[in-house]
Amino acid sequence: MRNCIIGQSGGPTVAINASLAGVISQALQTGKYAHIYGMINGIQGLMELKVINLGERLGSMEKLEQLSHTPAMYLGSCRYKLPETEETDMAVYEQLFSILKNLQIDDFFYIGGNDSMDTIMKLSDYGKKIGSPIRFIGIPKTIDNDLMGTDHTPGFGSAAKYIATLMLEVMHDSSIYQAKSVTIVEIMGRNAGWLTAAAALARTEKMGGVDLIYLPEVPFDREEYLKTLEEIFASGKEQVVVAVSEGIRDKSGEYVNDGQIEAKEDAFGHISRSGAGKAVEHMTADYFGCKVRSIEVNVLQRSSMHCASAVDLEEAFLIGEEAVNHAIEGENGIVLGYRRMPGSGYRVSIQAVDVHEVANLEKRVPREWINEEGNHVNGTMINYLLPLVQGEVILGYKNGIPDYLER
Amino acid sequence: MRNCIIGQSGGPTVAINASLAGVISQALQTGKYAHIYGMINGIQGLMELKVINLGERLGSMEKLEQLSHTPAMYLGSCRYKLPETEETDMAVYEQLFSILKNLQIDDFFYIGGNDSMDTIMKLSDYGKKIGSPIRFIGIPKTIDNDLMGTDHTPGFGSAAKYIATLMLEVMHDSSIYQAKSVTIVEIMGRNAGWLTAAAALARTEKMGGVDLIYLPEVPFDREEYLKTLEEIFASGKEQVVVAVSEGIRDKSGEYVNDGQIEAKEDAFGHISRSGAGKAVEHMTADYFGCKVRSIEVNVLQRSSMHCASAVDLEEAFLIGEEAVNHAIEGENGIVLGYRRMPGSGYRVSIQAVDVHEVANLEKRVPREWINEEGNHVNGTMINYLLPLVQGEVILGYKNGIPDYLER
Repeated sequence: MRNCIIGQSGGPTVAINASLAGVISQALQTGKYAHIYGMINGIQGLMELKVINLGERLGSMEKLEQLSHTPAMYLGSCRYKLPETEETDMAVYEQLFSILKNLQIDDFFYIGGNDSMDTIMKLSDYGKKIGSPIRFIGIPKTIDNDLMGTDHTPGFGSAAKYIATLMLEVMHDSSIYQAKSVTIVEIMGRNAGWLTAAAALARTEKMGGVDLIYLPEVPFDREEYLKTLEEIFASGKEQVVVAVSEGIRDKSGEYVNDGQIEAKEDAFGHISRSGAGKAVEHMTADYFGCKVRSIEVNVLQRSSMHCASAVDLEEAFLIGEEAVNHAIEGENGIVLGYRRMPGSGYRVSIQAVDVHEVANLEKRVPREWINEEGNHVNGTMINYLLPLVQGEVILGYKNGIPDYLER
Repeated sequence: MRNCIIGQSGGPTVAINASLAGVISQALQTGKYAHIYGMINGIQGLMELKVINLGERLGSMEKLEQLSHTPAMYLGSCRYKLPETEETDMAVYEQLFSILKNLQIDDFFYIGGNDSMDTIMKLSDYGKKIGSPIRFIGIPKTIDNDLMGTDHTPGFGSAAKYIATLMLEVMHDSSIYQAKSVTIVEIMGRNAGWLTAAAALARTEKMGGVDLIYLPEVPFDREEYLKTLEEIFASGKEQVVVAVSEGIRDKSGEYVNDGQIEAKEDAFGHISRSGAGKAVEHMTADYFGCKVRSIEVNVLQRSSMHCASAVDLEEAFLIGEEAVNHAIEGENGIVLGYRRMPGSGYRVSIQAVDVHEVANLEKRVPREWINEEGNHVNGTMINYLLPLVQGEVILGYKNGIPDYLER
């Protein structure tokens, strides 16, 4: 019989618990595991021996389904960076491997983003160096969709569906008055514009869609923006909706928030910076003198399980299951990913990629998926996004609010 | 045969189209109406003769259901204040009544908040003065729940359900890290704290609930707030979630945003003020030096049809239907409202109230529904709120986003 341990790390998504449920479910199904452990707060918690028995706690279909429908992270997270494996002081690794040995761990699963894949890479590299038999397997997640080695990341589809739904509702909201107005929505994604691009999915027959979409992949030009807005108003459209990534920068590489808006100091000496949305709001109000408002979607885009994509949660569960199969087959130092199958109709298969091809790299939106003017996305992006946001998840409710699982 | 006209006015809610659907449905059902008109952009549009035939456009169960499931306002809105009926220049009224006469209107329905009830009051007062037979009926709506003459307002239950869901998801999001953190959520309601109070519905077995809730009905005391937060940290709780109304004021009556945070001028001379959430964020970060963030829910709380309360939409439809019955019975100058029936179990009946008892008045949260410390609500509030957020609405979806109706 084998033992395994699972951890979660980095920022939340609504799909990361579905992957955890997939690992537990498949580990139970195979009948090969004596103990399925969970580390609380990632490897940081593991070093403090914060370990629970997941098989005992969650070993029923009902619990696993509720877990799959719970946002954020059942096991808690950490942001702990392991030292480079070439460094001389290996105390942290020695401690971690000693803990894993005491727990008689065979398979180590870590669900997370870029930083978490760095953890998998370093642990498997170190393990190979000392001849440890433990298999280290990475399972991706991030709403940013910026990981290499996968067509898209678990968690992205749900965040994209939420952004598309929200933009649609904001378009309805902004359409009711006759006066000129501009609504700016700031969406997460510091370096990669995938999630901001999902605003393009909010298309309707009569209102059209979001008027302008600015990604970090193309420099933001204030003059061009104002000119384009002028043209939109001149065409007779009165209520304009704009999506901007939090990470838009001008030609010189400065964040638009830094370049346009002065940092301000409050009465207590606390410095705060306005974000990209506020910066674009101010330049717009200033130029047009019309009603302008900005909305910062904030953590809601990574926690809104009540608006999850069914495709995303199903795939996230599946990738968790497959991680177990790959561990049993003896793989080590890999990250699972989705491969979009060629042909008509959307299907994915799950592939394993060497963790060195994933960790610390970043996948940005290809320039050719963005329109020539750099202020919207094109059909290639729409076709890429559409299958990922399909299907709604029916949650359990109690007292009028979703019945999420708690540790 | 009769003719009627319907208008919508004020800010959006997700229930205002359900009331419109209720009026159209019942007007069709009675068989008493030759024409069911809609005014585009309220009385402002009516004066520009922007009138459509709703019976023809929406006269099917399928369309009416889709309309009931569409946020914002199908007919568009306006913010137009009629002059006082005692003034000498009655040109606006003469114009409006002449338009209504040309359209051979018998019944005039107006769905809106406080300002819209002012419109109903003035039109019915003027109509009585000149001996017009037209019946003016008000149908309430507002996410603020601050109207008199009704147990609660259509639109409030859905906004409350959205706030409760969002707070629950924010609690999950904030719980994943080990470090001390404070998350502040700013909720709409300038003078009345009903919607902010709905944060209290985000209760769970293990996490408890939202730690602190500040309504505009009780002066906000910075020192008390920081002391209470200190006590919460001292009790061992590390991730604290706070709900604040956008309208909280200090003892001297100054808005907390104005009092604590200086207005700032950006590079283009545009003045912006930080809101209550930002103000509380800054005072918290300054005092505790821990991770603090604030979330401004913004228009999402009035447009999130994807998280509507089934009870709210059903009642909003019903109140629209009842408005037609009251018109046919010959009533004029009234506003419909909900009366909560005494006894165990939640049931409402629909009552008519003289518009003079509603227009321009404001219902605030009773002090005795707020805890003694003024930093949370009590069981009376919870019992009042719970029935209003029950039930989920199954929306139609197309291309991964809700399939809302467009004019």
